[in-house]
Amino acid sequence: MKLYSYFRSSAAYRVRIVLNIKGLSYEYSAVSLVKGEQREEAYRTRNPQGLVPLLETDDGDCLAQSLAICEYLEEKYPEPALLPRDPSGRARVRGLACVTAMEIHPLNNLRVLKYLTNELGITEHAKLAWYHHWIAEGFAALEAILAQSPATGRFCHGDTPTLADVFLVPQVFNAERFGCDMTPYPTIRRIVDACNRLPAFADAHPSCQPDAA
Amino acid sequence: MKLYSYFRSSAAYRVRIVLNIKGLSYEYSAVSLVKGEQREEAYRTRNPQGLVPLLETDDGDCLAQSLAICEYLEEKYPEPALLPRDPSGRARVRGLACVTAMEIHPLNNLRVLKYLTNELGITEHAKLAWYHHWIAEGFAALEAILAQSPATGRFCHGDTPTLADVFLVPQVFNAERFGCDMTPYPTIRRIVDACNRLPAFADAHPSCQPDAA
Repeated sequence: MKLYSYFRSSAAYRVRIVLNIKGLSYEYSAVSLVKGEQREEAYRTRNPQGLVPLLETDDGDCLAQSLAICEYLEEKYPEPALLPRDPSGRARVRGLACVTAMEIHPLNNLRVLKYLTNELGITEHAKLAWYHHWIAEGFAALEAILAQSPATGRFCHGDTPTLADVFLVPQVFNAERFGCDMTPYPTIRRIVDACNRLPAFADAHPSCQPDAA
Repeated sequence: MKLYSYFRSSAAYRVRIVLNIKGLSYEYSAVSLVKGEQREEAYRTRNPQGLVPLLETDDGDCLAQSLAICEYLEEKYPEPALLPRDPSGRARVRGLACVTAMEIHPLNNLRVLKYLTNELGITEHAKLAWYHHWIAEGFAALEAILAQSPATGRFCHGDTPTLADVFLVPQVFNAERFGCDMTPYPTIRRIVDACNRLPAFADAHPSCQPDAA
């Protein structure tokens, strides 16, 4: 398998974690979002969306969208499982992953921040406030769900990592990179620390990637 | 089952389509996003995220996040199937659904538009340009993928509806409501028209809901 990735893309970071947890080896192909390589013709023929990550499977399929890739890897390589067995638990895990994937990340990714600056002409200060606002909204919801539920364990759902953790860890990395205050979210903090002690998560960290600046 | 919904919420619209396709009857509980009922304590105890949709299952579980709810319904009520059987087809369908769910919708929902107006003070004109921009980015990618691929049929993937169509139809409804030009997307247009001829899609339309204005 070949993963088209950018070291700091949190969507690619999710897929790297899943590949590591499943013990799958893969070729790393760096796509520099800063240089705009994702918009170049060579890449667009593989992924018309011009986004990372993209997973080229051993069958030659090119799979886009991190959540779809994670579900694919879960179905194709079921062990260790990243979704619980019971439908309601699976819905809880997917729901937690979706809070990050849909309520926070899309609002704070690079192309949106660029639009805010270039098209709307907002100040750096207002841009940072935007960033912090969506993190705070999403993390407050996640903290409430995680802190209240008996289903929460050492990780977001029970005592082994699930897709909920896979999505949470890169988002916390981003939050800290942009100076968000994490003290209101002690449960998130505790879970992310537990994740980062596992080699599968640690090895997927942006700083460990071949294209790390 | 009970669905907490708002007639114009495109995330709730997705779940209504799936419930209809699966032939599941449900109680409709309206939550007015315009009146802010989603932020009231009574609702927040069920869904700390303060978002619709929310599905209360017959087992008493409260499931949030439309994609997680759709996957739950697919697992619990597998027929008619909304995901193909082969892993690569499933990844394609989920990837298409994710383009809408992650690249377009989160940027254009009500709370984001409100932030643009109230916090950033942008003009109505600039807000509409923002709306159209993210639709155009996402639909251009979807159109390219759909038009190029032999996997596209009468619907996004083959000749029966899948989750890709379930996510696409509400987004096109939104796009038209905000006056987006759909002529650059003939494949999307053709597929959405085919969907809307099916009662499961037509009955889920915002105008057919009990709380339609």
